Amino acid sequence: MTLEEKLMYRCLELAGKGAGYVSPNPLVGCVIAKNNKIIAEGYHKKFGSNHAEVNAINSALKRGISIRGSELYVNLEPCSHHGKTLPCVDKIIENKISKVVIGIKDPHPLVSGKGIRKLRQNGIEVKAGVLENECRELNRFFLKYVKTGIPYITIKTAQTLDGKIADKNYNSKWISSFESRKLVHKLRRAFDAVLIGKNTVNYDNPSLTVRHAKGRNPYRIVIDGKLELNLNKKLFSDRFKHKTIVITSNNVSKKKIHNFERRNIKVISCKTKGGLIDLKDALRKIARLGITSILVEGGAFTSTEFLKKNLDDANMIFIAPKIMGEGIDAFNTSIDLRWYKKINYHRSGKDILINIKK
Amino acid sequence: MTLEEKLMYRCLELAGKGAGYVSPNPLVGCVIAKNNKIIAEGYHKKFGSNHAEVNAINSALKRGISIRGSELYVNLEPCSHHGKTLPCVDKIIENKISKVVIGIKDPHPLVSGKGIRKLRQNGIEVKAGVLENECRELNRFFLKYVKTGIPYITIKTAQTLDGKIADKNYNSKWISSFESRKLVHKLRRAFDAVLIGKNTVNYDNPSLTVRHAKGRNPYRIVIDGKLELNLNKKLFSDRFKHKTIVITSNNVSKKKIHNFERRNIKVISCKTKGGLIDLKDALRKIARLGITSILVEGGAFTSTEFLKKNLDDANMIFIAPKIMGEGIDAFNTSIDLRWYKKINYHRSGKDILINIKK
Repeated sequence: MTLEEKLMYRCLELAGKGAGYVSPNPLVGCVIAKNNKIIAEGYHKKFGSNHAEVNAINSALKRGISIRGSELYVNLEPCSHHGKTLPCVDKIIENKISKVVIGIKDPHPLVSGKGIRKLRQNGIEVKAGVLENECRELNRFFLKYVKTGIPYITIKTAQTLDGKIADKNYNSKWISSFESRKLVHKLRRAFDAVLIGKNTVNYDNPSLTVRHAKGRNPYRIVIDGKLELNLNKKLFSDRFKHKTIVITSNNVSKKKIHNFERRNIKVISCKTKGGLIDLKDALRKIARLGITSILVEGGAFTSTEFLKKNLDDANMIFIAPKIMGEGIDAFNTSIDLRWYKKINYHRSGKDILINIKK
Repeated sequence: MTLEEKLMYRCLELAGKGAGYVSPNPLVGCVIAKNNKIIAEGYHKKFGSNHAEVNAINSALKRGISIRGSELYVNLEPCSHHGKTLPCVDKIIENKISKVVIGIKDPHPLVSGKGIRKLRQNGIEVKAGVLENECRELNRFFLKYVKTGIPYITIKTAQTLDGKIADKNYNSKWISSFESRKLVHKLRRAFDAVLIGKNTVNYDNPSLTVRHAKGRNPYRIVIDGKLELNLNKKLFSDRFKHKTIVITSNNVSKKKIHNFERRNIKVISCKTKGGLIDLKDALRKIARLGITSILVEGGAFTSTEFLKKNLDDANMIFIAPKIMGEGIDAFNTSIDLRWYKKINYHRSGKDILINIKK
């Protein structure tokens, strides 16, 4: 690995610390180096707060370290437009940094390349495209969201060897190992939202919060086309109910919707297609709330709908070494995941985790 | 790892070279060391040929190397009884080897420990129990066979993520990757026999030979309780038909049996239980032919019967990252494999291989 790549990896490492807190902004980390040594670091910590470049520059200035003539590394092109904060590009020029190394360009078509151009116009050497794949991977939620206006979708499934997610009585407890359940809680804190269907609320009454890991709770989205779910379910009655969003159809009565809204639960009305919620319409409306990523946690009907509509970006399948015999199938469709770009396997307790990305 | 363990690993490595050729004998490798250096090696190459110890000793003598005062390493207790060859213990004593390091004792209750005793009585230092687990693992076929009179049973399954082994038309081609199929061929050359049920012969007409790997073909066992299979199937008509064994029930007519036997196909008549072949009776009779290990290659009915009767020692499950939707289930029973002793996961092309041992 070259020194450039090592420093970019450090940017990615720093950037990752913001996971779960910066949406709908990207994850950005920044490193300032002089004579091949890191002299300051920073990352974007929270939506609305300083950008990574500003944090790194301020960190150096605060300690009285000169950054004149230094090299700045950042995984995403610095901004050149006036947003919530001053443009990073101006800050870089002002501090007479001599070289900027960038992972990937800004994906916004209107601003992509503008930051780089302004830096060059001010005599700063710019190199872009270092660890491009890794930078894209880290910000896959943000990149998909910006480019398509739809959140990044990961379908998570916990099943037995014979593809069952519950026994014939819809009991799904204890299929996967504790390690796997812990990992799912870690996922929840990185995704902006988790999503389930009506049936899962009725059978499992889950809270979908982060318990076996430290971190913030995600938004909890439920699809309930007729708005029939009982308001005493955990999602609608626990102390996080302001983070619950219900997706329902356009033709549900205002009175029904009001019953949810007066509890501080958000209701989004969507188009229907063939009697079912038009998922694409729902995802566009969810995206408008600043939700860039969704972890679909089932059940079978919901996961299968996302697969059928080709709306999944990734699949995480936990397989427990157990044969159920009779039970509820995880999927009710036929799909060949072998043609997805990346397939990885990991051990998770006694389970295996298959990670598949498009 | 100690030097002792390193030399024992080398014995296991050598022993493994005999896989597929020594049954019903054990896999044995032998190393002779002097001043911490290996001066001769040998292994049991083929049933009926020299034992490993004799091969190692002869290898030294042939090259004029003195083994007086040397140390001999062997993964299984040397024999002290006159069988097809002279007792290895006598050969060791005769050559004035001063120390013998042994992996595991002979499992035959009548001779276990006898070799060690005779060596000690002749002033040779003996250490037993080096890499015991690894030695047991390598000779798991032989050990089970000797102790129970039943072959070691591994059930192999190739399925999709949703637990299907074939589509609804019983078409099972191309479920697993080429790498997985190659691995199955490698397995076939190590197992004494492969076994399938009647349905698999009818649907797939497999030849069950070793093609994608070098090595000898295994015996091919078919369970056909009523002896109804057509003699034009590959197993009964190809040039390896003398290696096909048919398991049928006691009440099948002599005429039917004669039709198979005159083609040089072995027929074994077994007891029935509840209208099905008594698998335990069948396995005992198969064992009498010197078959110490069987790879059960399906289909669903046969594999499930072995699982239900608790006759499996190991399960190898290849999972292809593909969802079939409708199709034939791999298993028709409920069983929790999490309580099996060892669970390992390996990648095999785009598939995952789950290796579970009792």
